[in-house]
Amino acid sequence: MRRRVQFYETDAAGLVHFSWFFRYMEEAEHALWRAAGLSIHPPSSDVGWPRVAASFEFQRALRFEDEFDVHLRIEEMTARTIRYSCELKKGDDRIASGAMTIACVRRTPTMQSIEIPSEIAERFADE
Amino acid sequence: MRRRVQFYETDAAGLVHFSWFFRYMEEAEHALWRAAGLSIHPPSSDVGWPRVAASFEFQRALRFEDEFDVHLRIEEMTARTIRYSCELKKGDDRIASGAMTIACVRRTPTMQSIEIPSEIAERFADE
Amino acid sequence: MRRRVQFYETDAAGLVHFSWFFRYMEEAEHALWRAAGLSIHPPSSDVGWPRVAASFEFQRALRFEDEFDVHLRIEEMTARTIRYSCELKKGDDRIASGAMTIACVRRTPTMQSIEIPSEIAERFADE
Amino acid sequence: MRRRVQFYETDAAGLVHFSWFFRYMEEAEHALWRAAGLSIHPPSSDVGWPRVAASFEFQRALRFEDEFDVHLRIEEMTARTIRYSCELKKGDDRIASGAMTIACVRRTPTMQSIEIPSEIAERFADE
Repeated sequence: MRRRVQFYETDAAGLVHFSWFFRYMEEAEHALWRAAGLSIHPPSSDVGWPRVAASFEFQRALRFEDEFDVHLRIEEMTARTIRYSCELKKGDDRIASGAMTIACVRRTPTMQSIEIPSEIAERFADE
Repeated sequence: MRRRVQFYETDAAGLVHFSWFFRYMEEAEHALWRAAGLSIHPPSSDVGWPRVAASFEFQRALRFEDEFDVHLRIEEMTARTIRYSCELKKGDDRIASGAMTIACVRRTPTMQSIEIPSEIAERFADE
Repeated sequence: MRRRVQFYETDAAGLVHFSWFFRYMEEAEHALWRAAGLSIHPPSSDVGWPRVAASFEFQRALRFEDEFDVHLRIEEMTARTIRYSCELKKGDDRIASGAMTIACVRRTPTMQSIEIPSEIAERFADE
Repeated sequence: MRRRVQFYETDAAGLVHFSWFFRYMEEAEHALWRAAGLSIHPPSSDVGWPRVAASFEFQRALRFEDEFDVHLRIEEMTARTIRYSCELKKGDDRIASGAMTIACVRRTPTMQSIEIPSEIAERFADE
């Protein structure tokens, strides 16, 4: 996923605020799902995907109007969770590397861990 | 409502990004509702309050860690809408003045304008 | 400018939070500047463009993964200000219409209104 | 630090978007600095504190208007870095636990790692 830094993503230090990297990672995740013919949050679904863990290590800063690439891939899929790794690059420079684990839940009446529906798991099996 | 500027609210110009003023105004709105014993978005309600219009004029800038006050009041309540006016001040300096109109809707199956429930209207009648 | 709704732009009502429309408008503004060969915030410039006024009227809601178009144009350019109008559409449906006025300032030592530099004004003269 | 969930912090799943936890952690950081008589980003300073790493594990969700506490403390201070740990609780329920490492840099001409100024290190020495 190619992306350009927006002005509202910068902070008074003149850099992209670090919280945005987590949003970039999630944008790439949802693009990955769309590329697999899926939406992570379809209108009337009771299945949800809360985040269990998320982390980033920051090597270089991004600034207003910088163009960068977000490379996301599935590192591991268990019966109930998916773990991604993520790399941000600006040209050949590594900007940051992250990871995120999500869990499959039934959303009502209260969030409860469930197995990933097979029609979803199969879409990602070939990755 | 007294508020302090957070770092993630600033942008690369060193000022609070203008989109945040609309969020400050909404924070003050929800505080006003709580002060009236109400939540604008209770867990299991089918009544919603989409924004119909919102505007701000900006007189001065806010910077990181500035403390400021948000004064919000109801300017007009009709059968189906509420119109607020809003003023941001830092000490005696006027920072910005805004306005917002919200409409009462039934959220499902599709958003549809309804009359403001009397138990809500009454809470604001004395303001 | 074509844009897709990101998940972090939605709120608990299931809709795009209204503060995002102001960011969409600004994204389109900066794209317009880039199309004119300009950056609104070049790395070492002392010229700034604070927002003087911004407003939106909301006709329809946007939801997660909706695709929409942002049409922005310069309505008026004076010696010291630029006024834009903005329209958001999803297909043929009008979603929202906005306006924004920005002023040209020298940023240091304190923000002070100045005339728009001719090399900038000329780039927009033909619009 | 006590905090209430704002509406714009929620997403279409009805929960606080995970990116906000990183902002809550940073709010608590800056409050910690203020309590020590410091600002992490004073107006005319050339010293900066970019984030080197940030992570969260999420145990429970937060919803609109929930009140919660952010407990942040310095786990380690080296000559050039500070490492925090962070815990979010709602009443007695653990919501999430995080960590963040920041580095001290000279911001111009390009960000370069420096030793933490003694007048800052001393303020945190007794923590």
